[in-house]
Amino acid sequence: MPRQIVLASRPSGWPTEDNFAVTEAGRPELVDGQVRVRNLFMSVDPYMRGRMNDTKSYVPPFQLGEPLQGGAIGSVVETRSPDLAEGDLVLHNLGWRDEAVLPARHAQKIAAIEGTAGLSPSAYLGVLGMPALTAYVGLLDIAALKPGDVVFVSGAAGAVGSMAGQIAKLKGAARVIGSAGSEEKVSWLREIGFDAAFNYKAAPVFGQLREAAPEGIDVYFDNVGGDHLEASLAVLSTYGRVALCGAIAHYNATELPAGPHNLGLVITKRLTLRGFIVSDHQDRAPAMIADVSGWLRDGKLFHTETVVDGLDQAPSAFINLLRGHNTGKMIVRL
Amino acid sequence: MPRQIVLASRPSGWPTEDNFAVTEAGRPELVDGQVRVRNLFMSVDPYMRGRMNDTKSYVPPFQLGEPLQGGAIGSVVETRSPDLAEGDLVLHNLGWRDEAVLPARHAQKIAAIEGTAGLSPSAYLGVLGMPALTAYVGLLDIAALKPGDVVFVSGAAGAVGSMAGQIAKLKGAARVIGSAGSEEKVSWLREIGFDAAFNYKAAPVFGQLREAAPEGIDVYFDNVGGDHLEASLAVLSTYGRVALCGAIAHYNATELPAGPHNLGLVITKRLTLRGFIVSDHQDRAPAMIADVSGWLRDGKLFHTETVVDGLDQAPSAFINLLRGHNTGKMIVRL
Repeated sequence: MPRQIVLASRPSGWPTEDNFAVTEAGRPELVDGQVRVRNLFMSVDPYMRGRMNDTKSYVPPFQLGEPLQGGAIGSVVETRSPDLAEGDLVLHNLGWRDEAVLPARHAQKIAAIEGTAGLSPSAYLGVLGMPALTAYVGLLDIAALKPGDVVFVSGAAGAVGSMAGQIAKLKGAARVIGSAGSEEKVSWLREIGFDAAFNYKAAPVFGQLREAAPEGIDVYFDNVGGDHLEASLAVLSTYGRVALCGAIAHYNATELPAGPHNLGLVITKRLTLRGFIVSDHQDRAPAMIADVSGWLRDGKLFHTETVVDGLDQAPSAFINLLRGHNTGKMIVRL
Repeated sequence: MPRQIVLASRPSGWPTEDNFAVTEAGRPELVDGQVRVRNLFMSVDPYMRGRMNDTKSYVPPFQLGEPLQGGAIGSVVETRSPDLAEGDLVLHNLGWRDEAVLPARHAQKIAAIEGTAGLSPSAYLGVLGMPALTAYVGLLDIAALKPGDVVFVSGAAGAVGSMAGQIAKLKGAARVIGSAGSEEKVSWLREIGFDAAFNYKAAPVFGQLREAAPEGIDVYFDNVGGDHLEASLAVLSTYGRVALCGAIAHYNATELPAGPHNLGLVITKRLTLRGFIVSDHQDRAPAMIADVSGWLRDGKLFHTETVVDGLDQAPSAFINLLRGHNTGKMIVRL
């Protein structure tokens, strides 16, 4: 019988395995227009932490006792829709379960992209998926990257951050700096083309960032918040731009986080801070896929995945993601 | 002998009269290209507080023992430039003194504007000057005001705030809300067309703002920072925009101010926060003057001044400005 992972309780602070439970899912009959999808890969993403809280936000909270949701890639095993055939590979949003039953119009058939035949289908959850679009839109549209910019990316070894840094270079940034939480990640960032990288756990962010960017930065791509944001405000140049993408430093906080003490610099330096949610920008997916697939074909873009096997490992994969135990995209293979 | 006001010492926290001294200025001979201007009106503005500190910012700090500077209106009394004649009324940046000697190219001759003959020349320091341009650019360019927006302006009874609120209405805002620091100012805001106004000293900002804008706000014009900014982030609607113009709540702080605790809302609500300095936007002055002079002619725009007499009163006028003892533009008549 197919299984699913449900929200057993809401975490206060850091989630634990107790907040999740594996249950049997049943196998309902399809109705007209539906398909049954055998999931092959599912995504765990930092934003899911917000959905575990019972608070109104841009996506509704997960419900207690109900299966979690999230990006997944699967194969159609049964269809009552003329739009999808058995064996079709699809991207959809009912991860955290072995099998998903959904209207065919909620599943996106994965089209072959020339020159990317060697990619795992899981790429559509990472380097060709939501994290890539997040990086692409955040840099190009929200932060309005210009050739010659000096760019700083926090959480740079993650799925979004590693794409953001590389896209910045490929789109003409003069210099790209990344922060990450271990020496291994810092080494990897240098391998994939970051001009400078530092371990934020080794010393305060401000000093390391100032050293890496003695002339200042023009763009900050923020995945972290907290001291990373405060240090960036201090180091940004006049007319600098900040794309606020995530604030993983705060996701498990049980108290209201302190805001940056130097927000007055936004005025004196004429900075722009702009928050965004990738789902508002689906219209940019074709441009991203065209660029990214070209870079992959030409060997100009590096990506990696941290892959965990088995649905029952999804909760620990998610918890480890929040703890930064991944390099590149965190994937659960089902 | 003409007098001037010099910086006697740098304030720590709130400035006091001891930080200023009146000295004799001398009357140097003009060299070619210079003019001597008898000042008639001078401006005191909140941004001058920043120049009293010895810190690098967008304008250099005032120097100890040297006369202060700032916007002034005067009459040319002696000229060695073909560009300005005796009796010309000019706007320039050497206030805080009875007489100014400067290159003619640093003085801007005030051209007659049709239909504004009844205005005091001091208007060029306020309703037709830098505060008006600040409000105009902040609302229209930085916050990208759209017809139908709900707009909140803090420090709304000041020179910039009172213009910002009125310009918002005149440019099609659906509803304009202002905050000020006394019941008298709140009454005045209602008289000049604010749809709602509240006294931020009477109760917490958040509750009063939420009550005045139960459906949320689209634009926040920030002159204050602090709890005003935090409350606005809480009340802003999705895709809301913040023009960060000033942070008078922090100008006399001796410790680093706390940042807003809810900056994460910038992401979930997709907000844009943008700081600006009016001097970057002089190219917009003709459009502002065309609009404002038209509104003045048509009786659609209200303005007031708090006028103090005498150069030796300028320090107390400035201190009172920082304490909020002005309604509309604070002017010193010399």
